[in-house]
Amino acid sequence: MRVNAYAAPAAGEPLAPMTIERRDVGPRDVLVRIEFAGICHSDIHTVNGDWGPQPFPLVPGHEIVGIVEQAGAEVTRHRAGDRVGVGCVVHSCGRCANCRGGDEQHCSLGMVPTYAGADRDGTTTQGGYSTHIVVDAGYTLSIPEGLDPAAAAPLLCAGVTTYAPLRRWGAGPGKKVAVVGLGGLGHVAVKIAHAMGAEVTVLSRSLKKQEDALRLGAEHYHATGDPGILTDLADRFDVIINTISGDVDISPYVSLLALDGALVNVGAAPGPLTIASGFMLAQPRRVVTGSMIGGIALTQEMLGFCAEHGIAAEIEIISAGQINDAYRRVLAADVRYRFVIDAATLA
Amino acid sequence: MRVNAYAAPAAGEPLAPMTIERRDVGPRDVLVRIEFAGICHSDIHTVNGDWGPQPFPLVPGHEIVGIVEQAGAEVTRHRAGDRVGVGCVVHSCGRCANCRGGDEQHCSLGMVPTYAGADRDGTTTQGGYSTHIVVDAGYTLSIPEGLDPAAAAPLLCAGVTTYAPLRRWGAGPGKKVAVVGLGGLGHVAVKIAHAMGAEVTVLSRSLKKQEDALRLGAEHYHATGDPGILTDLADRFDVIINTISGDVDISPYVSLLALDGALVNVGAAPGPLTIASGFMLAQPRRVVTGSMIGGIALTQEMLGFCAEHGIAAEIEIISAGQINDAYRRVLAADVRYRFVIDAATLA
Repeated sequence: MRVNAYAAPAAGEPLAPMTIERRDVGPRDVLVRIEFAGICHSDIHTVNGDWGPQPFPLVPGHEIVGIVEQAGAEVTRHRAGDRVGVGCVVHSCGRCANCRGGDEQHCSLGMVPTYAGADRDGTTTQGGYSTHIVVDAGYTLSIPEGLDPAAAAPLLCAGVTTYAPLRRWGAGPGKKVAVVGLGGLGHVAVKIAHAMGAEVTVLSRSLKKQEDALRLGAEHYHATGDPGILTDLADRFDVIINTISGDVDISPYVSLLALDGALVNVGAAPGPLTIASGFMLAQPRRVVTGSMIGGIALTQEMLGFCAEHGIAAEIEIISAGQINDAYRRVLAADVRYRFVIDAATLA
Repeated sequence: MRVNAYAAPAAGEPLAPMTIERRDVGPRDVLVRIEFAGICHSDIHTVNGDWGPQPFPLVPGHEIVGIVEQAGAEVTRHRAGDRVGVGCVVHSCGRCANCRGGDEQHCSLGMVPTYAGADRDGTTTQGGYSTHIVVDAGYTLSIPEGLDPAAAAPLLCAGVTTYAPLRRWGAGPGKKVAVVGLGGLGHVAVKIAHAMGAEVTVLSRSLKKQEDALRLGAEHYHATGDPGILTDLADRFDVIINTISGDVDISPYVSLLALDGALVNVGAAPGPLTIASGFMLAQPRRVVTGSMIGGIALTQEMLGFCAEHGIAAEIEIISAGQINDAYRRVLAADVRYRFVIDAATLA
């Protein structure tokens, strides 16, 4: 089956329309007609070659919502007409300790990413900037009723990327959470942490997004350029979610952690992380860690949580022809807060 | 009350005999006749000025075991004749969240260290290289029957320093623990982790201590100088206790952590900690943290655990006159594994 898509022909080149092959629907597969696909900063890193050589042409997109058009004979989870999501992982071994523990994204044999990965049949996976996708039903999510399908799409990556560490590190009533950076990840983190009952602070470079942050659920907002602010906030936070997608000096943020507080880096920065002194992790005890998306079951749990609390991304819907312009705007931090491609414009 | 002690007269100078004043026994205090005092690497860092200016003359020592000679009117925990321990903390506010949570060592107002600290009456605390000490009974430990008093002394610092993170990060049956460095801290960490039921590996620079490590309870031993060994051990450990008291590149050890594994730095290295790439903490999820001794209740729990499992430090008992030579030998890593001063030689 050949379907329309938008692909990067080579590293750093503008994306352009092309057709790609989708495999036949196997007994455990579903064929999904894509409604919406979010644009994640990872898409841009990947096609720009920031993360090393990639198989081109490359169709990005791992924040996918659509409708099941056909379900394989063995699929019990979905039937034709169901609204489903596809996130960042489309296969894994299913047998290693990490997979059995529900962390398919950390499969010991290597998970199969939604695009630019080697699928189990040896072909290269192609992502959601496309009209259709064929996926093993074990790696699809049910989109709960009541979630807007376009605004739900970014939850498949940005939602679970922030939900997973907030849940792991105990965000909830009585806890103070700081979100560093108010972009695609950060704005969802604020909503989720607030819905979990935590007291949320946003730390951003300038005061430009203060009004938005308070509207999204933050109780406090500080510009990190404000001299002395990081001293005032020392030892305060139980969880800090660093969403900055780029290298940043984390030491000033480490010093904001209270006893047993955790700084979680979710922004996929490839460079080194330096903590100015070993004492900063010992007195008081503090944790520096990272987190990468989440397993399928946790992603489904996150969708249920978001539906229950009326949470979705703040989005700007674009047509396929606007993808390259959207990339430029993401790199210029000129989006509030996520672009979502209307896949009908690819048809 | 004036008592005999061994003190550093100034930064970097040899320790020498002197007499110091101990306060009168208050209603909540106990007067302890010291039997044994361990020599901790921190003592040497402190008197050498490695950690900044100190009040001299300075009597080090925070691994203290002795006999209660007198108990204040309000003391119910001990009576004369009891064997007690004094560790690294002799006072704290008792009212902040950290103190109330049992982490007196992280008192928000600053805990009072056993030596070189400002006591609640404004005097400077003096440590255990001394014949007697007067301590608030809320900061003393009961030494369980069956623990050798000399070999138990190092548990007051080295024991709880390693017990606390092993317990916090879940060392136990089915878990793989690595101990980096087999010195004063490391050799106790091996014993405790083994007694907790974990599978213990020692990582040391050379093979010199292999026989010791296996005798202490390790199942595996690797020389980190062996080319390729760190690659072979990638993604393996649930907990790594880094006991190296000095700056070390932690990145190679981070890469040895399995999903949700934690690298805990307990060696009090003041320099920066650098993780080569943020990806190393995200794929798979890994934790880098530190730990500093432990609270009073946890220290008492640790002593009970050690008594139950027949664990104490491997020691070499010395007289007071050998202290300066012992310092030289600690710095040359020429001790297996802890010097303990027989305080009777100070009388």
